[in-house]
Amino acid sequence: MAEPCTVRDLAARIGQTVTIRGWLTHYRSSGRIRFLVLRDGTGVVQTVVKAEAAELAGVESWEQIGQESSLIVTGQVHRDARAPVGVEVEVRAVQVLAATHEYPITPKEHGVDFLMDHRHLWIRSPRQAAILRLRSIIVQAIRGFLDSHGFVVADPPIITPTPAEGSTTLFAIDYFGEPAYLSQSGQLYMEALALALGRVYSFGPTFRAEKSKTRRHLTEFWMIEPEMAFCEFEENLVWQEQLVEHIAQQVLLRALGELNALQRPLAPLENIRTPFPRITYDEALVRLAQLGMPIAWGEDLGAPHETALANQFDCPVFVTHFPTHLKAFYMQPEPTRPEVVRAADLLAPEGYGEIIGGSQRIHDLSLLESRMAEHGLDASSYAWYLDLRRYGTVPHSGFGLGLERLVAWFGGLDHVRETTPFARTLNRVWP
Amino acid sequence: MAEPCTVRDLAARIGQTVTIRGWLTHYRSSGRIRFLVLRDGTGVVQTVVKAEAAELAGVESWEQIGQESSLIVTGQVHRDARAPVGVEVEVRAVQVLAATHEYPITPKEHGVDFLMDHRHLWIRSPRQAAILRLRSIIVQAIRGFLDSHGFVVADPPIITPTPAEGSTTLFAIDYFGEPAYLSQSGQLYMEALALALGRVYSFGPTFRAEKSKTRRHLTEFWMIEPEMAFCEFEENLVWQEQLVEHIAQQVLLRALGELNALQRPLAPLENIRTPFPRITYDEALVRLAQLGMPIAWGEDLGAPHETALANQFDCPVFVTHFPTHLKAFYMQPEPTRPEVVRAADLLAPEGYGEIIGGSQRIHDLSLLESRMAEHGLDASSYAWYLDLRRYGTVPHSGFGLGLERLVAWFGGLDHVRETTPFARTLNRVWP
Repeated sequence: MAEPCTVRDLAARIGQTVTIRGWLTHYRSSGRIRFLVLRDGTGVVQTVVKAEAAELAGVESWEQIGQESSLIVTGQVHRDARAPVGVEVEVRAVQVLAATHEYPITPKEHGVDFLMDHRHLWIRSPRQAAILRLRSIIVQAIRGFLDSHGFVVADPPIITPTPAEGSTTLFAIDYFGEPAYLSQSGQLYMEALALALGRVYSFGPTFRAEKSKTRRHLTEFWMIEPEMAFCEFEENLVWQEQLVEHIAQQVLLRALGELNALQRPLAPLENIRTPFPRITYDEALVRLAQLGMPIAWGEDLGAPHETALANQFDCPVFVTHFPTHLKAFYMQPEPTRPEVVRAADLLAPEGYGEIIGGSQRIHDLSLLESRMAEHGLDASSYAWYLDLRRYGTVPHSGFGLGLERLVAWFGGLDHVRETTPFARTLNRVWP
Repeated sequence: MAEPCTVRDLAARIGQTVTIRGWLTHYRSSGRIRFLVLRDGTGVVQTVVKAEAAELAGVESWEQIGQESSLIVTGQVHRDARAPVGVEVEVRAVQVLAATHEYPITPKEHGVDFLMDHRHLWIRSPRQAAILRLRSIIVQAIRGFLDSHGFVVADPPIITPTPAEGSTTLFAIDYFGEPAYLSQSGQLYMEALALALGRVYSFGPTFRAEKSKTRRHLTEFWMIEPEMAFCEFEENLVWQEQLVEHIAQQVLLRALGELNALQRPLAPLENIRTPFPRITYDEALVRLAQLGMPIAWGEDLGAPHETALANQFDCPVFVTHFPTHLKAFYMQPEPTRPEVVRAADLLAPEGYGEIIGGSQRIHDLSLLESRMAEHGLDASSYAWYLDLRRYGTVPHSGFGLGLERLVAWFGGLDHVRETTPFARTLNRVWP
């Protein structure tokens, strides 16, 4: 048997005889010619059986190889400009490892509930596999950018004693008889780590027990939370836009096959160039009024407002300086105008909404204590967090990037449930 | 002010005037000369104030700058072969951002409970910061190896409906009124993903509600779980040893400063060269008997046995082919000798015990069903997992690498609680 070759690597093996190990996605015959379309996890390739002489092992006839049968195919690689991977394979031998019959997911249309019930199989479909590969490429791009800029990856705890922002949306667990909660943000811990290590980031799951059934919400989702010591508001925005630009460039470089499989128009991704536009909340209100969607100063932007604002730009846009009372207790008020905070949301174009939320954090102990009192927070629960301001406090900033929404945006997807292998939603914890 | 420079980058700036932003770890004076030792998260450097003429801002006298005061120091970089970072900085100006007094963690000895209660500050100490940087370098090495070998990173769910290996050590959560559990292994999901994507790996937290108080146990720890389709037992071992060798090489290349800070002897790490020795469980029993530690065939190896075996090698060693009844239901029995399974534990030298556990998985549906029945497992809870054998099954293998134990081993640490920013143990969920 020739050495195994992945579908992705076939284009470099033209003229050679290779072995491909994978699964049948489609079978058809036309006269004496048979076509077996194979997937192997790295891509999809058409193979052609031109003669009865091709060896077949494991089953008695070609017709017994059903969709999702596992196969080892040996054949010669030919250039084929029409094929998605640029080649076709002329089959010499097929060994059937396991003939599959009555595979539940057929090329016909299935309902979403059926597909999610069969998610362990649905992920094999070329579209779903392309999304998961796109996610992996995006993960690598994020880590690559942060690693190469001196950020230390540091994992905040998942099991936490104190809710960071209220407890109504927390999953509670019994921790050997003590109450504890699943983290919905590692930020407070990342602040401690930034003061120890300079620049840090987390990359892990977070949890929100929201009873939301929207196309943007999962109860379990992955967040990237960078935090930088000696970093103020403006520098924080620059880190964010450079990170997003880097991801876009990497996706366009490494995930073109996946984007094509998803029929994702490339122009919106090619437009992602720094610097991103910045508008203040106040300016946003003026724009919304001009669009016939007025809101009063002090009210929060809803999803329709975010979409309307983002549609005015062909690039992600920062909305900055939100009213202080709308935002979390730890955000730094603007010194000359304390009714707004040094916080920004990054809104993606094409209706994908908030991708990043970030802010400069309050570094002054007494200001932080008074903000916590205004929020009715119990200082004893935050004793360790206050220590960060008591001992060697410095200006610091950070942000949180939601991975699934980012994947949905880059992939041009309708729903975040397809951006993660096994989505957890209000009504689903299976498979 | 000169452009900020990290301590790590000072060696490239000899002769230049730089600005360092960091925190005071030690202060002493000798006659008219003062020494300020600074940390900035990337390293520790000694700065020297040779004249009263150096500017001081933010406080009135040098004596007011206590340990962990936050400072911005400007000065000239001089070569100093005796210094850990190879340079010393002659101070021209010091700006004190926040003068700190009575920092709780002093150079004197503190008890472990005190230090863990102050973990948010303890992580600033040079030793703890070195461990966390070492962890970050190891994380990058693992991801780098797997990413460069075509593995797709894929995140299995944390919130799971079905326990993979019994439920006594699971943390239960209330999922909108339904029972659910925190994952203690993503393996079953990784098997589904390997059949969709070929080679995959997870990199995330896992949870075990074990009432163990040992230096090797955390309740929340990070696991790397690669899973490979079309991969049998021997190839699985090769992936494991190549990964561990790569990590060792990267650590020796990139973390020498951290290893020195931890006073870690390098020879044991330099000895990590593939191929690693392999002994069967049967051979292990012979060796243990010769060492005066006999155990009967069918009994499991305990920590003292693992240490005694590993001490016979100066490199990690695989113990293979354990008795089937000792291992999980999904492990492939050896066809010619079904009382043992195609599983291996990788034991680290120096008493660090099991670092990796891996196996070839059963791919035959009826064999898997009969093994599950023997284990008393409810097939309906595993319906989706059985589907993986019903539709397109192939030989596949994988392994689980425990990050914290690996960091403890590479760092030469006594206890895993120092290998993670905020350890979770039987009695600790704070800070």
